[in-house]
Amino acid sequence: MTALSLNVDLGDRSYPILIQGNGLSGLEGALDTHVQAEKYFIVTDSNVAGHYLARLKSFDIFKEAPAYIIAPGEQSKDIKTYNDICLDFLKQGITRKSCIVAFGGGVVGDLAGFVAATVMRGTGYVQVPTTLLAQVDSSVGGKTGLNTVAGKNLIGSFYQPDLVYADINLLSTLPHRQIIAGYAEVLKYALIDDPAFFDWLDQNAGKILNNDPQAMAKAIETSCRKKADIVAQDEREGGVRALLNLGHTFGHALEALAGYNGSLLHGEAVLIGMDMALAYSVSRGYSTPDDLTALRKHYADYNLWPEWQITATADDILHHMQKDKKNTKDQIVLILMRGIGNAFIAREENTKDIKDFLVQYLKER
Amino acid sequence: MTALSLNVDLGDRSYPILIQGNGLSGLEGALDTHVQAEKYFIVTDSNVAGHYLARLKSFDIFKEAPAYIIAPGEQSKDIKTYNDICLDFLKQGITRKSCIVAFGGGVVGDLAGFVAATVMRGTGYVQVPTTLLAQVDSSVGGKTGLNTVAGKNLIGSFYQPDLVYADINLLSTLPHRQIIAGYAEVLKYALIDDPAFFDWLDQNAGKILNNDPQAMAKAIETSCRKKADIVAQDEREGGVRALLNLGHTFGHALEALAGYNGSLLHGEAVLIGMDMALAYSVSRGYSTPDDLTALRKHYADYNLWPEWQITATADDILHHMQKDKKNTKDQIVLILMRGIGNAFIAREENTKDIKDFLVQYLKER
Repeated sequence: MTALSLNVDLGDRSYPILIQGNGLSGLEGALDTHVQAEKYFIVTDSNVAGHYLARLKSFDIFKEAPAYIIAPGEQSKDIKTYNDICLDFLKQGITRKSCIVAFGGGVVGDLAGFVAATVMRGTGYVQVPTTLLAQVDSSVGGKTGLNTVAGKNLIGSFYQPDLVYADINLLSTLPHRQIIAGYAEVLKYALIDDPAFFDWLDQNAGKILNNDPQAMAKAIETSCRKKADIVAQDEREGGVRALLNLGHTFGHALEALAGYNGSLLHGEAVLIGMDMALAYSVSRGYSTPDDLTALRKHYADYNLWPEWQITATADDILHHMQKDKKNTKDQIVLILMRGIGNAFIAREENTKDIKDFLVQYLKER
Repeated sequence: MTALSLNVDLGDRSYPILIQGNGLSGLEGALDTHVQAEKYFIVTDSNVAGHYLARLKSFDIFKEAPAYIIAPGEQSKDIKTYNDICLDFLKQGITRKSCIVAFGGGVVGDLAGFVAATVMRGTGYVQVPTTLLAQVDSSVGGKTGLNTVAGKNLIGSFYQPDLVYADINLLSTLPHRQIIAGYAEVLKYALIDDPAFFDWLDQNAGKILNNDPQAMAKAIETSCRKKADIVAQDEREGGVRALLNLGHTFGHALEALAGYNGSLLHGEAVLIGMDMALAYSVSRGYSTPDDLTALRKHYADYNLWPEWQITATADDILHHMQKDKKNTKDQIVLILMRGIGNAFIAREENTKDIKDFLVQYLKER
């Protein structure tokens, strides 16, 4: 594949996204060009470390870089691990001219990003995403965060990286389940504002899910470009950025109910959540039953439905939805659709409609 | 006194500083004008709560506001208290349209500010400083932070408040030792760039230290104006803002050695630190012995010397200075003076000069 370069346009917080497929061989040069830190600190998880840490450490720039290796999974995105990383890096002499490299998926990115945002009140920060989900979504846009007992990502900050370096090559060792979870976010961009992209995905999802480099590069580039555009318009999620949460208000509730134990991946929750958002849109008359049929056919054609089953009640789900960060005191903010490729931000003041919908949805599944 | 209003000019993060002397009676109106939050959450400490929380809660706007009361002192500025406040406020339904009111001194401000910067990735945030130190320094400029075992303020963020409301009236219950500690930061602004302000302080410090409203208002206004100017030039301390750390690199080292147990207040450490910075400036030929004599006469005239005595060695102090956030890998950044009212940023590559100075300084005390 050809190397691609996009830009997230945020004034003095702008940064490039490089999409490569060369096994990290361009990373050192990119850091020299875009970052120029005095010292690098790596955060990764044990899965990624097993596959690629030796490769990363083989570059001169990382020879002496301390690497903090976390356990894989959402459980590591907690305040204790955050504090441990901060103290370890402080002990190893991190300064404001240092740069933290988030080398992993969304969990590593969110956690390392929050460390970078807050240790010494902010250090340099580079994302080297190693999952499809992180490459198309979580590595771009500057959201960092920790989970709390009260819910997911309820502590965090907006802190932009200096560079995102996405290497498609790294996806070859990713389990198929993780590819599908990442694909959920690709599909999300189509559902938000691009019916033509949905049609293309409906033809080409098989190639993407089988790691075809050309199809994968197009999926990642399109996703990153769409996300970069929205983030440039609304960095701190005061308005249009909320569209990126399509499927996430329902999805986060399911994730919370599943318990972040790996039984339901974030992308899997988003897949169910997008189905719920469209089904709710149909129930409110915003979308047609045909839209829902088309989406469900896409899920069926490419085996996208997660194995995890909803056992929670409508009340359980609604209770968690009411804690979403986008909400205000009296309104639940939901991303709904006027058909595939036409999402909008809805502010629901009456939770009864949502409750009735959930009861019906759970009955029909 | 007449109410005063200044502005910290930071583009879309600009905010007003109101200096009042009316026992908080203008606060409700100021919040209605400048903040308009859906719900207010208060962070305060037990000393301030004892004196003023009932007064605050007597305003309609705060009638239903949850108040989190911490123990006074630096020990509360830790990750555990931070996490406890986050979880408590999340439980009580904090949203991004909520506003956290930091009602206290520097510890409350730094801690509440870091909560506001990070809970839900950022809520509203108002500073109502109740100590002289917070009114002239820590409430303005958006530095938030926590202490760690590795040192003070090593975790935090730059996060600007929506409003600073400083009421001189609240200083009437402040212990004299705390007034002196706050006065240290007032004096700092004179030493940085204003010989005429130093002369005025040298005439009027007695009035300030005795809570004369006119003198106090002038001291606070001048200090806030100077800080606002510097912060507007350099929000994230990439350059000129480092001048505000005059006396702080030495001072933070002394605080760390004293153990944050109340034996040495921050402002007291800054008083010693400014003396050390000027003495070091003399030893390097930047200032004259007459400058040091003038400063020490000022300290003696107004009984500014803390009771706390340095028992640490030069090596101990240097070791802590090397951990300062302003440092880069090979340089210690120190704020030195070319005479009173003419501070500059020095980058010292050779720690031997500092060490030799410290040995001599400790010997002469």
